[in-house]
Amino acid sequence: MSDTTRFAATVSYDGQEFAGSQRQLHARTVQGELETAAERLFGGATRVELAGRTDAGVHAIGQVAAFSADTALEPGTVERALNAHLPEDVAVRDVREVPEGFDPRRWARRRWYRYSLLTSAVRLPLQRRTAWRIGSPLELAAMKDAARTLLGRRDFSACAGPLEEGRSPVRTVAEANFSQAGCLLAFDIEADAFLPQMVRRIVGGLVRVGRGAISAGEFENAVAAAAPATVGPPAPPHGLSLQRVWYDEGYAT
Amino acid sequence: MSDTTRFAATVSYDGQEFAGSQRQLHARTVQGELETAAERLFGGATRVELAGRTDAGVHAIGQVAAFSADTALEPGTVERALNAHLPEDVAVRDVREVPEGFDPRRWARRRWYRYSLLTSAVRLPLQRRTAWRIGSPLELAAMKDAARTLLGRRDFSACAGPLEEGRSPVRTVAEANFSQAGCLLAFDIEADAFLPQMVRRIVGGLVRVGRGAISAGEFENAVAAAAPATVGPPAPPHGLSLQRVWYDEGYAT
Repeated sequence: MSDTTRFAATVSYDGQEFAGSQRQLHARTVQGELETAAERLFGGATRVELAGRTDAGVHAIGQVAAFSADTALEPGTVERALNAHLPEDVAVRDVREVPEGFDPRRWARRRWYRYSLLTSAVRLPLQRRTAWRIGSPLELAAMKDAARTLLGRRDFSACAGPLEEGRSPVRTVAEANFSQAGCLLAFDIEADAFLPQMVRRIVGGLVRVGRGAISAGEFENAVAAAAPATVGPPAPPHGLSLQRVWYDEGYAT
Repeated sequence: MSDTTRFAATVSYDGQEFAGSQRQLHARTVQGELETAAERLFGGATRVELAGRTDAGVHAIGQVAAFSADTALEPGTVERALNAHLPEDVAVRDVREVPEGFDPRRWARRRWYRYSLLTSAVRLPLQRRTAWRIGSPLELAAMKDAARTLLGRRDFSACAGPLEEGRSPVRTVAEANFSQAGCLLAFDIEADAFLPQMVRRIVGGLVRVGRGAISAGEFENAVAAAAPATVGPPAPPHGLSLQRVWYDEGYAT
């Protein structure tokens, strides 16, 4: 008989000082910081799993983490204690109990990423850590046309970095929209799951469309041809943020 | 006969790494960085004047600077060259020619500051440099009532840090409004000019109202009594940003 409780937490971080989300031996990672905080709180080795892998420099508003602990602490107490142990560039919220087998990656049904572009001829210092500045004008209508061609279920090899052997390149994109507020241009994309570098490569390709280097039709054809890593180059990581992850049965962020 | 041209520039900066806007001998300041960049460009000592003094840690979207130079360069060229010489946390835009005697401080007719509050029980890492987080609930209606009492022309000694001998404490506040978007609460205030620490002390006082420590009426009475530095304490600088400065005759940002 076990007294183990499984917890999920919504995680926000400023990706700038992280070598990505997944634990690495000699680098500062989100998983590493969460595990260190959990080990201080629970007094024993604690494995933390994350819903999505984010690259070095990528931010998160609504990443989801899960961990198990032999504890009688209430979720709200766990949340406050973890935040007290975490550094200022990562925080947890909405800590809640979840079923024993909860896997934040496998149980996720949909993910939402936002990529922020800044269309400004001059630098805007307060946006420099969270938006990719494009100094030249962008043809937004063409970018929107190209984005629409991403919708649906298909092989996204063209928009992916190297894939592990045997990993399926098929994903279903449910939303792919631009919205504009002043010189901030946000690209929101939702899919069941994402391939490595997928959002950054898509944005890199869409910016090529916006600059007139390729047409929306050429973008569509490149995606459809499904030749590995031909859409891009990947946009820089600091414009990207994992916004939210959805689960069945209300394990939402 | 002089070939001197007077320029104005709109200046944005991330205040975090600055010891304020005004030049100091052994500290990094906005004025100091602008003067260094201008001296590199024009090849001689260049005095840069600013519309508003901002404290250490305070940001700006639309500060205004002015400087004179013996140059035949067009404003657009000056803008690109200055930005090339400036560090990543400060940038200029809308560089334009202005009349010989243009004084960005004395000629300013109105200034707009925004103070950003974050009403969230947990930390939000991506907002930590630009918003003051208040973990407890705030009574926004009472804060709005108190803010309305600031409107008009009066002695604002109660909301000011120490004043130089002979400096008038009378200012005219034209706007003082709260707006909310999710857990971000913005306080916008416009006046002809501001006293030292005035916005930060007002926000410190309004947050006391929001927490129920004092009533809107007590806030109003404290302002009206005009006893020096009795409204506050000053809110931390990182939530504050100088948004815009207006001039007669269209020298706006």
